[in-house]
Amino acid sequence: MQLLKQIEQNGPRDLGEQIHQFAADLYPICRSITGDGVRRTLTAIQTRIPLKIFEVPTGADVFDWTIPKEWNIRDAYIKNARGERIVDFQRCNLHVLNYSVPVHERMPLRKLRDHLFTIPDRPDWIPYRTSYYRENWGFCLSHNQLKALPDEEYEVCIESALTQGHLSYGECYFPGASDEEVLISCHICHPSLANDNLSGLAVSTYLAQFVAAEQRRYSYRFLFVPGTIGAIAWLRRNCEKVAVIRHGLVLSGIGNDSGFHYKKSRRGNVEIDRAMSVVLRDNGEPHKVLDFSPYGYDERQYCSPGFNLPVGCLMRSVWGTFPEYHTSADNLDFIKPQRLAESLRLCATLVDVLENNRRYRNLLPYCEPQLGKRGLYRSTGGQAIDSEIDALLWVLNLSDGEHSLLDMSATSGQSFATICDAARRLQETGLLADICEEEEERDRDPEAVTSNPIDFTPRLSH
Amino acid sequence: MQLLKQIEQNGPRDLGEQIHQFAADLYPICRSITGDGVRRTLTAIQTRIPLKIFEVPTGADVFDWTIPKEWNIRDAYIKNARGERIVDFQRCNLHVLNYSVPVHERMPLRKLRDHLFTIPDRPDWIPYRTSYYRENWGFCLSHNQLKALPDEEYEVCIESALTQGHLSYGECYFPGASDEEVLISCHICHPSLANDNLSGLAVSTYLAQFVAAEQRRYSYRFLFVPGTIGAIAWLRRNCEKVAVIRHGLVLSGIGNDSGFHYKKSRRGNVEIDRAMSVVLRDNGEPHKVLDFSPYGYDERQYCSPGFNLPVGCLMRSVWGTFPEYHTSADNLDFIKPQRLAESLRLCATLVDVLENNRRYRNLLPYCEPQLGKRGLYRSTGGQAIDSEIDALLWVLNLSDGEHSLLDMSATSGQSFATICDAARRLQETGLLADICEEEEERDRDPEAVTSNPIDFTPRLSH
Amino acid sequence: MQLLKQIEQNGPRDLGEQIHQFAADLYPICRSITGDGVRRTLTAIQTRIPLKIFEVPTGADVFDWTIPKEWNIRDAYIKNARGERIVDFQRCNLHVLNYSVPVHERMPLRKLRDHLFTIPDRPDWIPYRTSYYRENWGFCLSHNQLKALPDEEYEVCIESALTQGHLSYGECYFPGASDEEVLISCHICHPSLANDNLSGLAVSTYLAQFVAAEQRRYSYRFLFVPGTIGAIAWLRRNCEKVAVIRHGLVLSGIGNDSGFHYKKSRRGNVEIDRAMSVVLRDNGEPHKVLDFSPYGYDERQYCSPGFNLPVGCLMRSVWGTFPEYHTSADNLDFIKPQRLAESLRLCATLVDVLENNRRYRNLLPYCEPQLGKRGLYRSTGGQAIDSEIDALLWVLNLSDGEHSLLDMSATSGQSFATICDAARRLQETGLLADICEEEEERDRDPEAVTSNPIDFTPRLSH
Repeated sequence: MQLLKQIEQNGPRDLGEQIHQFAADLYPICRSITGDGVRRTLTAIQTRIPLKIFEVPTGADVFDWTIPKEWNIRDAYIKNARGERIVDFQRCNLHVLNYSVPVHERMPLRKLRDHLFTIPDRPDWIPYRTSYYRENWGFCLSHNQLKALPDEEYEVCIESALTQGHLSYGECYFPGASDEEVLISCHICHPSLANDNLSGLAVSTYLAQFVAAEQRRYSYRFLFVPGTIGAIAWLRRNCEKVAVIRHGLVLSGIGNDSGFHYKKSRRGNVEIDRAMSVVLRDNGEPHKVLDFSPYGYDERQYCSPGFNLPVGCLMRSVWGTFPEYHTSADNLDFIKPQRLAESLRLCATLVDVLENNRRYRNLLPYCEPQLGKRGLYRSTGGQAIDSEIDALLWVLNLSDGEHSLLDMSATSGQSFATICDAARRLQETGLLADICEEEEERDRDPEAVTSNPIDFTPRLSH
Repeated sequence: MQLLKQIEQNGPRDLGEQIHQFAADLYPICRSITGDGVRRTLTAIQTRIPLKIFEVPTGADVFDWTIPKEWNIRDAYIKNARGERIVDFQRCNLHVLNYSVPVHERMPLRKLRDHLFTIPDRPDWIPYRTSYYRENWGFCLSHNQLKALPDEEYEVCIESALTQGHLSYGECYFPGASDEEVLISCHICHPSLANDNLSGLAVSTYLAQFVAAEQRRYSYRFLFVPGTIGAIAWLRRNCEKVAVIRHGLVLSGIGNDSGFHYKKSRRGNVEIDRAMSVVLRDNGEPHKVLDFSPYGYDERQYCSPGFNLPVGCLMRSVWGTFPEYHTSADNLDFIKPQRLAESLRLCATLVDVLENNRRYRNLLPYCEPQLGKRGLYRSTGGQAIDSEIDALLWVLNLSDGEHSLLDMSATSGQSFATICDAARRLQETGLLADICEEEEERDRDPEAVTSNPIDFTPRLSH
Repeated sequence: MQLLKQIEQNGPRDLGEQIHQFAADLYPICRSITGDGVRRTLTAIQTRIPLKIFEVPTGADVFDWTIPKEWNIRDAYIKNARGERIVDFQRCNLHVLNYSVPVHERMPLRKLRDHLFTIPDRPDWIPYRTSYYRENWGFCLSHNQLKALPDEEYEVCIESALTQGHLSYGECYFPGASDEEVLISCHICHPSLANDNLSGLAVSTYLAQFVAAEQRRYSYRFLFVPGTIGAIAWLRRNCEKVAVIRHGLVLSGIGNDSGFHYKKSRRGNVEIDRAMSVVLRDNGEPHKVLDFSPYGYDERQYCSPGFNLPVGCLMRSVWGTFPEYHTSADNLDFIKPQRLAESLRLCATLVDVLENNRRYRNLLPYCEPQLGKRGLYRSTGGQAIDSEIDALLWVLNLSDGEHSLLDMSATSGQSFATICDAARRLQETGLLADICEEEEERDRDPEAVTSNPIDFTPRLSH
């Protein structure tokens, strides 16, 4: 698989615009950790990729947690003394404290204040607040609006329902040559928040579309889950099968103008961690690789000590570190078509590394093979070599069965694509053997002569 | 044990002043590696802590060394031609070359010069010089005084005695729940030198007082020994028992205005090395962690290759690097009550880390446990978490039986106290098991069901 | 062996001038990978050291390569329409594309251009170009000369011959106490290029002269080989014996005004890598230690994955990074007598480290031995110690059988010479035992009492 090449060649022109449009379609939906908002989102994804939707009933135990009641909401407002809707859920779904219990009361400002959330530092923005596991109701509004509220009586109304129902999540599986899996996971539980929610699920959907069209070495599983409780529910239902997850990535907040941040898996040096470091280096844009920490997105669950899965997290801005985080300013203007497209390309490059990372054996390991007679070397000597010849020399030198192409790329500074191409050319001229194929060969014919035509082995004892 | 808390709550108000006063009481005594000066010092310490005093006879072989003759001195002076005491031991005991043999002679300046020690670069200060293992006599004086000496005849007199006697050292042992020991060692062989000698032994005495009053996990041994020969004598007499020393610290030069320096043990990464790094980081003041080197204080002996004990050395200024080192300027003004108190607190914090550093097992290791229902999480979501919740998440994530609380503190950047408190709260809510207690439990009842309520184990083979 | 001392004491005064003169003598010879130029160069070396010259016949297979036809050249020129030699091999042997097939033709400038090589960026310099493995002919000239060529007909003539013959290389072996070898290798295949070729072979020749005169711990093998094909031919003929190579160094480009560059062996941390780092540190001049890469000089072959020998490469300027590289500007003015002498001294210092690097056992490992009674410590205490005492303490502390003198020098920051001297003094006073001699002793008399006079061993279990 050369996913990036496929995307560049066969992907629609204005990929970024399309991903952004998909996010825009989903933006108005009032999502939460349960309810119809999640279902509508999953259904929209289902129009693009073969998503299976799962429903976990209220009350089901998932590890230490219990699936909560399903939350749905029809309307919500605060009316002033003149009966005018001064805070209106219809205008912005962030106005309601997510998971608010129903309420319909009149009360003075003094009492109402306990249920109002604002951001004094950003007086024009509406915060996003939740109360999933403690019954409460509330409204979020701009601090300026709060300050301007006269001291009068207000009518508050939240037409929500907390009922026996289900938690919904979506899963999309593409089998590959191997049962070993690449897991891509994103959360789908935030209402009108563009970067922290929609950017991840939109890019993930497009990535799945492109992966679906290719021959795959690995199997791929894309998860679209409500944050925390959704990932926990999925892990509970699949806990006996997670050992096949060879590489995993949580995608979140990948649409805004910021360099990339990759948070390493708890193990800290697994293949996806090393692959992402090389991919980000090759990509050339500003980026930072962060050590694992137990706060963040659903890698919290995948990397809990009982599972300790090789799952990292790709972001542009890191949660909580940018002012727009969890506010109405994380809107459709905050995410950029170009950034979404670049994020998709970065993920495709990562998939290319995972798919093509192999170990090889140099079949002529004593001295350099003569590349010139195979058309792999310049004919006039005396000048510096180019990076293609340099990559050939690196691949030959490190094809000792121990180093993978990823190791070679990391050590040499040559891009993974260049190294991969060098390995392909060397294999075509018969200088390299794929270690896996070699092992399969040996399984079929244990008597087969070894690939090394020279029959001495210097005893290098020191 | 929470030693720092106890000191803060029950320690006398003006702790620094008290430690400084104790140093002041001991300042005039003319100490050396043997003799009554050491004995008087040990007796003074004995009024505060249950010190046992040991006497090793002159001539005893201790490894490659022999206990020297005991040195005592009554008086010493240089008189000028008019019979005036121009250099007078009674005014400052540094004036005599420590361990001088007795002398009473008249001689011209020319000959006297060979026995005079000064510091030309610091012309107002008297140096501290010794001649323990080669018979010699001499006087130390300021360079200005030397330059002003007229070329006349002088009477020199040192009323000292080198006799069959003993080397004295003190030892104070507080048994704990475990036989494993924390060793605190300081030297007590310098005459009127405040930082390099009195600061260490005074803080050590106070530390012992506070440790004595607490329940202890470890046993504690405080040593007050003449430098080098005293430590060697102690090691010779206790060489079969040193394997119980789990952590050790040499205290010296911890009273002056300087950031801390911690010199690591020869092993370089034992628990006390890691603990001190975290303690110094949490303390926040400027500090530096130094690699081991074989020159310094008595860690030279504890870390000799045959013993190779896990013993580090805490200083403020490093020996030989500050101008006042081994001069009359290392006086009672050079050490500050506040610095002495801070050093004591730092040692107490270290003891807290050693006492409370344990490994735990997260009893719900698959996904995060639901902290909210246990009152350990904020109820309204959407905003950044505080450091207490962060610490809870770190402790849960790293409580895999492999990581200690010290590891968690080092990795997370959260202070050891915060991590420790998080572990306590998690243990109280039943989410954590102490690995040691767990192992004891299993010893008592090998059939007991394992603590993990979930009965599957994902086979994470890679 | 103390090679540096021997060189300083017995080496000729103007060593740099002599080495430079030797390079100057060899400068005019038209070398290539085969032919009489190489033979004349080897014969010149043979007048100074006992070099054996080997001839490998054309057509011989050496691993993946075949020894090419032997190339010799008598004359070459381009004549203009007036019959004037405007490009003349007799004036500079770089003018001919090395390994050009014979040609004698008339042709217009348009056609001639395909066979002309220049450096547009350095219009006054003649490039050095080769075409070993593809039949071609050509001339190298300055870009200014090319630009000035009128559009007329030219006579080109290369009187070269490519015939069945041999590839020649030289080898000089000095047996030592051990069969284990130090390999010094340099290439001898470049025509009139001073730094890239002559500096390495000239310094190597002088190094061999001095090594020859000393008692040796290791055996020494000096190779003078045509680049790539010569090293490959040598490895093919000696592949069963390379396991004795304990340390190896390729010397190249060590005559010009530049700090040193040492490129580590493929293994990256073998003794020669660590030794060279210490030698360069002690030397004090600017230098850089580079990681291994598979492009460069003949370390490419020695470090191919099948051999993976412990061979590094010492340069001043790195190939391809300085403008004079492979041009007529790499002439006798480009290399400096002083630089050549310094390079020789650096190599001698390296040999000293390799020869004298041993592990010792501190025979009094419990506490410090009393250095004073052995005359190894100052008698008056109180002042800072000097670096000689510091080195004694380091050697005692790290002589646990695990650390070599090289480790001690690297860890302590004391020069290898200082550490080595400290070990000698300690061994002379009976405080240290050479681990190798100890082992031989034990082989002779297994019942011999252990060297440690104290019969307890603290059980340090943690």
